[in-house]
Amino acid sequence: MQMKSTHGGIALVGFDADDTLWRSQDYFDEAQAHFEEIIAHYVDLADAGKRLYAYEARNIAFFGYGVKGMALSMIEAAIDITGASIRAADIGRIISLAKELLQHPVELLPGVREAVQAVATDSPVVLITKGDLFHQEAKVRESGLSELFRRIEVVSEKDPATYARLLAEFGIDAAQFLMVGNSLRSDIAPVLALGGWGVHVPYHTTWAHEAETQLTTGHQRMRTIATLAELPPVLQQLQPLAAR
Amino acid sequence: MQMKSTHGGIALVGFDADDTLWRSQDYFDEAQAHFEEIIAHYVDLADAGKRLYAYEARNIAFFGYGVKGMALSMIEAAIDITGASIRAADIGRIISLAKELLQHPVELLPGVREAVQAVATDSPVVLITKGDLFHQEAKVRESGLSELFRRIEVVSEKDPATYARLLAEFGIDAAQFLMVGNSLRSDIAPVLALGGWGVHVPYHTTWAHEAETQLTTGHQRMRTIATLAELPPVLQQLQPLAAR
Repeated sequence: MQMKSTHGGIALVGFDADDTLWRSQDYFDEAQAHFEEIIAHYVDLADAGKRLYAYEARNIAFFGYGVKGMALSMIEAAIDITGASIRAADIGRIISLAKELLQHPVELLPGVREAVQAVATDSPVVLITKGDLFHQEAKVRESGLSELFRRIEVVSEKDPATYARLLAEFGIDAAQFLMVGNSLRSDIAPVLALGGWGVHVPYHTTWAHEAETQLTTGHQRMRTIATLAELPPVLQQLQPLAAR
Repeated sequence: MQMKSTHGGIALVGFDADDTLWRSQDYFDEAQAHFEEIIAHYVDLADAGKRLYAYEARNIAFFGYGVKGMALSMIEAAIDITGASIRAADIGRIISLAKELLQHPVELLPGVREAVQAVATDSPVVLITKGDLFHQEAKVRESGLSELFRRIEVVSEKDPATYARLLAEFGIDAAQFLMVGNSLRSDIAPVLALGGWGVHVPYHTTWAHEAETQLTTGHQRMRTIATLAELPPVLQQLQPLAAR
C-alpha cells in the first residue's frame, strides 16, 4: 500500500478502536467489579482492584494485552489474595466473565460511522489497534466498519517503533500521518514523538495502564475533541498547518 | 509490498513458524502431560487428554489459538473433570505451566537458517503464522530470523480467505506463491485450493486440531520433504513447472 500524497498535509488518518470507535473499557470495568464481588466472599479488602492491577501490569510481559491475559491475571490474583482458599467453582465464574467479555456486543460511540466516512472521502483511513488478534478481528467484523478501512493492523504494542514500522509499510512520512484515539499513552504520544499529528478523544473511563503517560496537552500538533463528530472540521483546520 | 515477478514461476515463498522453523508442539505436549498428572490426583482417567481436547476445540470460537486460550481451557476442563474439587493451588500450577510455555527457548529445527537464507537469495520470503500475536512476535524476535523475512504476518486463522487477502496485499497471484509448513490443514490445503504451491514438512507430533484435514498427499502442486534442508533443491525442481 503506497499512500504518498501528491501535496503536503495529512495523507493518512489512523484510528484506534477500543474506546475510540466503540465501547470497551466499560466491559472490563464491569468484569473487574464482578471479580471484586467474588473475592469479597473470602477476604474483606478495600483495594482488591488495585491489587489485581499489580498482577495485570506484571503479567503484560507474559500475556500481552487483552481479555485472556486479564482472565489469567484475575485467576492468579484470586488464588494469591484468598491464600489459595478460593473454590474451583468461583474460578470457573472468572472464566465465564472472560467469555462474556469476549462476546460483548460492539456498540459504536456517537457519530463514529459518519466521522470515519467523512474522513475517508478525503484521506485513506487505517485502523490500528492493540491487543488480542482474535478478539480485535471479531470486533472489527461485527462493527460493520471494516470496509471503510484501507488496512486493519492489530499490533502487540503501540510504541514509536511500531508506528515507525507501519508508516514505512504504508510509504508515509510521520508528518503526513494523523492518529485519532482515546489513549494519550498509546495513540497520541508515540505519534507526536515521530513528528506526526494527534487528535485525542478522551473516554469517560481509562484503564490504569493507559493513564500512565508523561504527555501533557497543549502540543502544537495535537488537538482534543469531545466526540468523533468534531473530527472532520478539526482535520480541515489542521491541513493547512500540516501542508506548511 | 509489490512482489510481482517479471517472469512466471514462484515469486514468493511463505513459511509457517511453529514446528516448521522451530520446535513448538513438544512444549504443548509436555504441558498437557503435566496437566494430566495434576488431574490424576483427583480422578483416575485414561482419556484426560482427549477430554481436554474437547474443551480446547470448543473454546477456539472464544479464545482463538495459543497458549493463553490453552491455559483457560485447561482450567475449565480441570474444574469440570474433577467435579469442581480441584484445589486453587493446583489451578495455580496450570497458570505456571502456561507461563513456562510462553517463555520456552526458541530452538530452530535442523537446517532452518541455511534453507531460509538460500531461498531468500532467489525469492522474497514471508513468515505466515497463526496464533497469539504477542507470543508469536516474541518467538520471531528470539529466533534471530526476522531480518530474513520481507513481512511477518500473524493471522487468526489460516484458511483460503486469509491467504487470499495476504496475496492481494502482496500483489501476487496464487500460482506464483509457495507455502512451506508442517500442517496440511493450515499451511498446504488452503494454498492448493487457491491454485498455489505447497511443500509439506511433517513434524513428529501434531496437535489433534491440525491433524483434521481431508487433504491426501499426491497433489501435483505439492511436495513432501523430511527437513527444510531439502527445500532449496525442491524449489528449483518446481520452478519450471510453475513457470509453464
